[in-house]
Amino acid sequence: MTDPPKRQAAGSPAAQGAQTCNVALLGFGTVGSSVARILCERSNTHLRLTHVLNRNVERKKVDWLPSSVQWTENIDEILSSGVDIVVEVMGGLLPTEDWIRRALESGKSVVTANKQLIARSGPALIALARQKKQQIQFGASVAGGVPVISGLHEGLAGDELFIIRGILNGTCNYILSQIEANGVPFATALREAQKLGFAEADPTEDIDGLDARAKLAILARVGLRCHVDPESILARSISAIDSVDFEYANQLGCTIRQISRAELKTTPKGDTLLAAVQPALIELASPLARVEGSQNLVMATGTYGGETVFGGHGAGGNPTAVAVVSDILAIARSRQSGMNYAGQPLEKTPAVSAGFTTKHYLRFLVKDRPGIIASLATILSQCGINIDAVVQKPGCPKSHLPFLITLEECQATLVEQAVVQMNALDFLVQPCLHLPIL
Amino acid sequence: MTDPPKRQAAGSPAAQGAQTCNVALLGFGTVGSSVARILCERSNTHLRLTHVLNRNVERKKVDWLPSSVQWTENIDEILSSGVDIVVEVMGGLLPTEDWIRRALESGKSVVTANKQLIARSGPALIALARQKKQQIQFGASVAGGVPVISGLHEGLAGDELFIIRGILNGTCNYILSQIEANGVPFATALREAQKLGFAEADPTEDIDGLDARAKLAILARVGLRCHVDPESILARSISAIDSVDFEYANQLGCTIRQISRAELKTTPKGDTLLAAVQPALIELASPLARVEGSQNLVMATGTYGGETVFGGHGAGGNPTAVAVVSDILAIARSRQSGMNYAGQPLEKTPAVSAGFTTKHYLRFLVKDRPGIIASLATILSQCGINIDAVVQKPGCPKSHLPFLITLEECQATLVEQAVVQMNALDFLVQPCLHLPIL
Repeated sequence: MTDPPKRQAAGSPAAQGAQTCNVALLGFGTVGSSVARILCERSNTHLRLTHVLNRNVERKKVDWLPSSVQWTENIDEILSSGVDIVVEVMGGLLPTEDWIRRALESGKSVVTANKQLIARSGPALIALARQKKQQIQFGASVAGGVPVISGLHEGLAGDELFIIRGILNGTCNYILSQIEANGVPFATALREAQKLGFAEADPTEDIDGLDARAKLAILARVGLRCHVDPESILARSISAIDSVDFEYANQLGCTIRQISRAELKTTPKGDTLLAAVQPALIELASPLARVEGSQNLVMATGTYGGETVFGGHGAGGNPTAVAVVSDILAIARSRQSGMNYAGQPLEKTPAVSAGFTTKHYLRFLVKDRPGIIASLATILSQCGINIDAVVQKPGCPKSHLPFLITLEECQATLVEQAVVQMNALDFLVQPCLHLPIL
Repeated sequence: MTDPPKRQAAGSPAAQGAQTCNVALLGFGTVGSSVARILCERSNTHLRLTHVLNRNVERKKVDWLPSSVQWTENIDEILSSGVDIVVEVMGGLLPTEDWIRRALESGKSVVTANKQLIARSGPALIALARQKKQQIQFGASVAGGVPVISGLHEGLAGDELFIIRGILNGTCNYILSQIEANGVPFATALREAQKLGFAEADPTEDIDGLDARAKLAILARVGLRCHVDPESILARSISAIDSVDFEYANQLGCTIRQISRAELKTTPKGDTLLAAVQPALIELASPLARVEGSQNLVMATGTYGGETVFGGHGAGGNPTAVAVVSDILAIARSRQSGMNYAGQPLEKTPAVSAGFTTKHYLRFLVKDRPGIIASLATILSQCGINIDAVVQKPGCPKSHLPFLITLEECQATLVEQAVVQMNALDFLVQPCLHLPIL
């Protein structure tokens, strides 16, 4: 990874009159440094990174952050400062929960990516934030960069959701994909994942479903508005899955994935939340069956809107940092009085063009005669376009003969020029159909 | 569709001290009546439907809305009332734009599902709303119930998006799917779509890409923060696509879909927005190739978070109404001082269970001997579980023989009971692996 160019000031306020928001970062590991990079590289925000806290902070210092940033090991320095938003990306329950509480009590809003903490103590922290008229946001705690928390909470707020299903753990998905693709035993796939950094040295949390269970508890709270203790959710390990199970699953038109699901059953006698994290057979036609490697996917089903799907990168420094920065921006926006989409300036008024560069598909319908390919190839060549392949469907009438030319990558505008010339050729029964190949 | 049960009051404030928001509905067609139903059926909101406006309003009156709702044909009645949010679901540009302007000028916020209006006049209306310290939300204007506007604007706010691609028009997607599946000519597929209500009597807006172009202009504005006139975007018709093109596309490992795409190219010389709506070949492995019938899908690519996917129902009364109600709730939330996720009460603390009812997969590894199936079948039968199939992989050693039993739908808890008993049988080399089939 290359260092971003140095800027004079990280996130100096671009919009006149916008209130600057001071941000402190607790934790400068993979996610923390990605958050700092984005705050640093993005123009047009009114966010200013003022503090970075880490243990042994000296060894963490980097030269690409502005010199105004204060590096510290002391939480009190941050709590007593003019920081507006404390961003917690340290992980763990101790001392994290205590620090987050103290931040809220000091009148600071909080952004956290800590799924275990939010799954266990979310409601209490939310209540504390509310009491202190602050906010706590945790969009990065589930599915990394996939904006499923805001999607369920805001985008689908108008629906009554009752089912949430998803692939919430990239480690398990990677391991199961490897067993499926290479027919290797579980232990081999796990070792491979550990070697490549897709699984931790102690993979228990992932493999046994404890990580996904915490995420499912958060999704049930946000999407189904159900209070649920993560430890009350069944979690079963994927370690018993063998390559023979994929053979059988395939015979049944299925694959196997670690699936997290929660379903709210409302009856006159009371409500039940069916909830489990476990390996399951999934029909190959389901979007869940097509989630590859360490990707995440969440499907929400509502009374009115039916099924909605959110997918993307569930982990990694940059995708998780996007979720963290989105949360910071949401808090910053709500601090601007009445600021909303309307308040965000449009940045660009670019020239608009359809000149994409892609491969192309040209389909002709011709009266057959010698020399057709030669005529077409000459025009294409004169326009500087390379032919990739010529395909002809057998058994068609000579008077209405369809055939296909595919082109190597070139600008759409060149193809348009060539097509105009080709359409003037007298052997064409109808104009050439030209489509980009994406 | 059955009528919802009558309630004493539509959306009477549930949370103590929550500020009630009065809502007026302009338009009582498919979307408008779905919005009214959701507002009526949802408890725990502080939204109150106070007015419904429609031409010839007498013929629109229904008995399932509270008698307090005022039915009118006169916009002035609404503008001079205590309405807080005006919801426009009439469509068209006239008199809609004028009415929306007057609503904002009267100090009311606006929610609209009107893509053509927002694509053309969005920036001006947003500026007006800002000036009047009101909000205008338009989440339903693109992709119906798929929360892509809020996803791009809020969930991915922390990223720098540079590509947006999507299937934004369900009519085209339905017609192309039909040509592909049934090998029918375009004209036949169109007639069929019209008969089933998937295409309008005059399908030009959809077929020629003008509908998708307006949506793409809105997505470019929200996601890429580019101001773009929809008429500057190339739009090509799908009417030239023939079933032979699907044969060729398949030979190339592709299918054909109407794709809307926008890509921001930033260079020192200036910015260019590549943008087009056109039929295109899509690799079968792409999520875009798997969008079926009238579904919508949007893929956004960002510098930091990579590719994120949003999919779901792009049209229809209820899904579109979900987007409208979500926008109403967003405005209502922002009117509550500092109200955010933290401010929304959790509704339920249900019992938690893993007792899902599904088919099941039981995989055994046994020392082969006569009577194995009989022993297992007896236990299953005693637990009231029906066997669906027994599958045995050929050519395995007798001492480590894997085989599979699939079960008809039954409660997971019953299967757990049966598995405990089966695991005590002495011919099992390892415990039975049991997975749900979803």
